[in-house]
Order: sequence, then structure tokens, then C-alpha cells
Amino acid sequence: MNKIITISREFGSGGREIGKRLADELDFSYYDAEIITSIAKETGMSEEYIKNISEKGMYPYAFHFAKSFAIYPVYQSNQTEVLVAEAKVLKQIAEKGDCIIVGRGADITLKEYGPMNLFVYANMQSKIERCRQKRQDEKDMTDKELQNKIKQIDKNRRNYHRIISNLEWGDKENYHLCINTSGVEIKEMISPLADYIEEWFRRK
Amino acid sequence: MNKIITISREFGSGGREIGKRLADELDFSYYDAEIITSIAKETGMSEEYIKNISEKGMYPYAFHFAKSFAIYPVYQSNQTEVLVAEAKVLKQIAEKGDCIIVGRGADITLKEYGPMNLFVYANMQSKIERCRQKRQDEKDMTDKELQNKIKQIDKNRRNYHRIISNLEWGDKENYHLCINTSGVEIKEMISPLADYIEEWFRRK
Repeated sequence: MNKIITISREFGSGGREIGKRLADELDFSYYDAEIITSIAKETGMSEEYIKNISEKGMYPYAFHFAKSFAIYPVYQSNQTEVLVAEAKVLKQIAEKGDCIIVGRGADITLKEYGPMNLFVYANMQSKIERCRQKRQDEKDMTDKELQNKIKQIDKNRRNYHRIISNLEWGDKENYHLCINTSGVEIKEMISPLADYIEEWFRRK
Repeated sequence: MNKIITISREFGSGGREIGKRLADELDFSYYDAEIITSIAKETGMSEEYIKNISEKGMYPYAFHFAKSFAIYPVYQSNQTEVLVAEAKVLKQIAEKGDCIIVGRGADITLKEYGPMNLFVYANMQSKIERCRQKRQDEKDMTDKELQNKIKQIDKNRRNYHRIISNLEWGDKENYHLCINTSGVEIKEMISPLADYIEEWFRRK
């Protein structure tokens, strides 16, 4: 069976960077935004629309958002279609070869593949600093604005997770390793992390 | 400043084994039961009594336990003495050299030393199996009995942590790395873990 690593992560904690660097180190395929593109192809919906549906709030938690656009029934049915397409795309990826998948509830959807599930997190100050360094549009935001953005995105991720699972997003019990990146130079941690992961897969 | 690693752990998750093996690998001193001995020397109380006070339930959570022996005021004052002695002993240890300390709330008490705090956990089935393998007196206990024992000990650890800190025992935010040992061969994971830890200390 292929080796699957899923990475769930708090916004700004460097989960994507860990995913990309680990994929290079381990010679695994890396999937992130590509998944949205594949779902778009699968459903015929636009990538932007899918991002909105799957990231910016979902039923029943997105009720307010959906209602405010008065498109609630359409929204709900599209959401289901996106979830189905997403599961299909994730399973296709898992069948292809060893891979690292960031986000998209892959820890849940690909459970039958025995993935190694990582959770990446950090304290708020560290996430704010990392956001400022990495993203042009976040350079001029105040700490308060960035903190609100981080909290909102993580809230959406938690809600999204609740739709596809009764396991709580971020509860350490649901992951094999939880990595706090506060004050850590991620690129220096990749080699020991990759070794840990290789041992983890060897155990089975 | 000396390098301090603290290990908090769920009962039966292999935290002590990780601690001992890491200490060998990193050439750090290892402290566990020795701390009780030192507190006993410090306070003049017996080791058994200190273990009872500090592990089997503490004020205010041990109120019921204490009351039932009708020694509540004595118990409470001894408990404070133990906490004070424990903090003193932990700081002496931290001053001596690089070390790994299992339990005793060292993550909290030694905060000023900038320790790397690990949390070791596992799923219930894995903890039950590990207990049966490691401890003679637990070989003949039923799953249910072992589960109750594990839950009770972890509850005491959580309560103990609440007395010395407002941070919650086991919340991943309070640790730098959380390691799930379910189905893992601990000795195989030590080398990459030690490398990760060495990188972590190098970053500062």
C-alpha cells in the first residue's frame, strides 16, 4: 500500500512548508492547491467557488453566510457535490503513489489507507510573524487583524472537519505526531522529521 | 544554560521508556523516581507518603480522599511542603547539567530554564497492551480494570498539574512535540527523536 502522510495545520503555523519540504526530502508527491483544481474539473464548478464552499464556511456552520446570499438550497446541494468529488479526488491521489496531502480532511477520508497524520501548530505570536514574512497581503495588517484572520480560518477548518467526521480537528488523539513550530526554523527540522516518518512506516 | 527536556505522559504510553532511551542516546541525566527520594530527604517524610500526596490526589481535587481520612488540615499543609520541596529539588537538578525529567510538573516548575516539553500519549488499547507487557501486577487485570486504572492515574496527573499551573495537562499547546506511541516500536524512534531534539535546542 502506498505511504500517505496527511498534514492538518493551524493557519500560519508553517504546515505547508513542512509538507513541501518533507515531500522533497522523502521523494513523495505533494498535493495542496492541486486538489481544488481536480475537484473543479470533476464538478464543472469554478475553483474560486469550490474554495468558498469548502473553506469559507460550510453547512450547518455556514448557515448565516449562505442565508445572507439567499442561495441556501443551491449552496447546500453544491456543497455535497464538492464533498463527494473531493473524496473521489483524494482516493485517486492515494492510489497513485506515496504522497503528502495538506488539508482537505485527508486524515479522515483516507483512513482506510492507514495514513500517518501530522498536526502542525504554533503559538499566536509565531503564527502572526510567519504570516507577515510569507504573505504580501498580510504585511500591512495589524496584529489584531491578523489574529482575527487566523482564528477565523482555523474555525472554518474545525467546522469543515466536523462535517466529515465526529473526530475533533486538532485533538492530538487523532494524529500520530503534533509539531509545535513556535520559534523553530522549519527547514532544520525536516531531516529528523523525515527519519521519524520513515521509521513510523517501517513499523507496520 | 543546561538543556532540559521534560516528559509528560499518559500512563501506559511509554513516556518513561522514551525518557530513559533518549537520555542514553543524548547522554543526558535521567530523573524520575529519584526525585521522590530527594523530596523525602528534603522534607523528612517517607517516600511512600510523598507519592501518595503528590500522585494519588491533591487538594482541592483530593478533598474527598483527604476528608475520608479526617486528616485534611495536616494533609493540606504537608502537601504544600511537598510542592515547595519538589520545586527546590527540580531546580537543583536543572542547575546540575543537561537532563530529562519525567513527570513532576517539571514543564511548569522549570519554565524559566526554557525546557523542551514533550507529551507522550497513545490510544487506550495500546496503553493496555503496554501495561500488560511491562508490569507484573497488571498482567492479570482485565481490560476494564486496566482502563480504569489508567484513567484514574491520568486524572490525578491532570489534577496535580492544575494545582501548580493554569495550563491544562495534555493540551498540545503547552508542549513542543506530542508523540503518539500507538503501535510504535519506541526504541526504533529514539534516534530520529534525538536528532529532532538536538535541532530544537540548536535553534535558540
